[in-house]
Amino acid sequence: MARVLYDLCGIDDDLRFSPFCWRVKFALAHKGLDTQTRPWRFTDKQALAFANHDKVPVLVDGDEVVTESYDILRYLDRTYPESPLLGEGLAADRARFFKYYAERTLAPAMLRTIIMDLLNAVHPDDRDYFRETREKRFGRTLEEFHSPSKGLAQLDAALEPLRGHLKESDFIDGEAPAAADYLVFGNFMWARCVSSADLVSNADPVYAWIERMLDSHDGLGRQAMRVTDINGAYR
Amino acid sequence: MARVLYDLCGIDDDLRFSPFCWRVKFALAHKGLDTQTRPWRFTDKQALAFANHDKVPVLVDGDEVVTESYDILRYLDRTYPESPLLGEGLAADRARFFKYYAERTLAPAMLRTIIMDLLNAVHPDDRDYFRETREKRFGRTLEEFHSPSKGLAQLDAALEPLRGHLKESDFIDGEAPAAADYLVFGNFMWARCVSSADLVSNADPVYAWIERMLDSHDGLGRQAMRVTDINGAYR
Repeated sequence: MARVLYDLCGIDDDLRFSPFCWRVKFALAHKGLDTQTRPWRFTDKQALAFANHDKVPVLVDGDEVVTESYDILRYLDRTYPESPLLGEGLAADRARFFKYYAERTLAPAMLRTIIMDLLNAVHPDDRDYFRETREKRFGRTLEEFHSPSKGLAQLDAALEPLRGHLKESDFIDGEAPAAADYLVFGNFMWARCVSSADLVSNADPVYAWIERMLDSHDGLGRQAMRVTDINGAYR
Repeated sequence: MARVLYDLCGIDDDLRFSPFCWRVKFALAHKGLDTQTRPWRFTDKQALAFANHDKVPVLVDGDEVVTESYDILRYLDRTYPESPLLGEGLAADRARFFKYYAERTLAPAMLRTIIMDLLNAVHPDDRDYFRETREKRFGRTLEEFHSPSKGLAQLDAALEPLRGHLKESDFIDGEAPAAADYLVFGNFMWARCVSSADLVSNADPVYAWIERMLDSHDGLGRQAMRVTDINGAYR
């Protein structure tokens, strides 16, 4: 049976920027599982009614429907145990920290830098929804929240442990990437797809890791459409 | 042969506050290894000449001399494989991140809050050394660096991923503490021994974890001398 991933898209059906969906796309590539992606937009709640869920990623794997990126990684390890993503025991417990590091430390710092680029990349029909939900979350307008200088300074500090870690190994998970790399790298794909902002200087060990991640799995990340590839879309 | 750990002390021989030494003391307790600790002061470089090293922790285990807290944890797993601390494979790679999270994210935030308390806890003979080395590192005087309000705000943000993680399990490493817990908790022991500052509100999941860590290994952390236990020492 076909394997299908519902994947957030923006102004172009092929502009796929969700950090949560990127985690899953890398995880599927890691397991060597061919998957068809289906573009989905924020306001298309109806299309996910079958999953009893209102956001992506949603993975349909034969008869199984799995939601939430972390639960999908767990599902993949359970169902396809070869090439562990999260692993078991201490490895799995420690992996979870990277989910929170990505979502609560890196994402807010990146968001202050790329929020207006993100709005620009979102499909026009989704922009009111995007603005309303995010302004409610931030407690201020997108324009007030937007502050690349503060965001970049915050990101620079937030990357310190990653920087130290990546001086000692090519990937967070050692000699090859696994779940901790995908959990964190989803954020960098998010920023890369919607923005041309340089988040990390090219002398940074994190930069070299980003390059390695872009090359991994036959260039899955590097081949992804960026908003700058769309004629007239980036401003 | 006796197992000996050289352990930093302050104004009292029993005031032991080094976060790096605490990692090792918890790791030794985790492995069930009886160890005698020997008080050591910053300026007593001569006492460590045998180890060809100038700071603690230094573990002497029979014929083996091991320095640096992380290397000691590795040594313990290699030599006493039961009850893994760092573990192997993905677990070990991920553990290393917690070392950097503790040292580069949590420690600077805590330090801004407790630096003057720390100076006060240091042995009088060590204070000039402590001030000189730290002022050189910070690029300003201890008094200028000291800023509890900034430090606490920074710590609050820095604890976000830990907070998320600890809502889902009792310890960083799951149902029982292991290396990731000890790597991070060393910092909290450091602050606890030298200061009465409340770093974490008691409604915080991190607070409940601190309490569990203090109770672990028969109250190893809770029984440790604090500067507030020494008559007239805390000001």
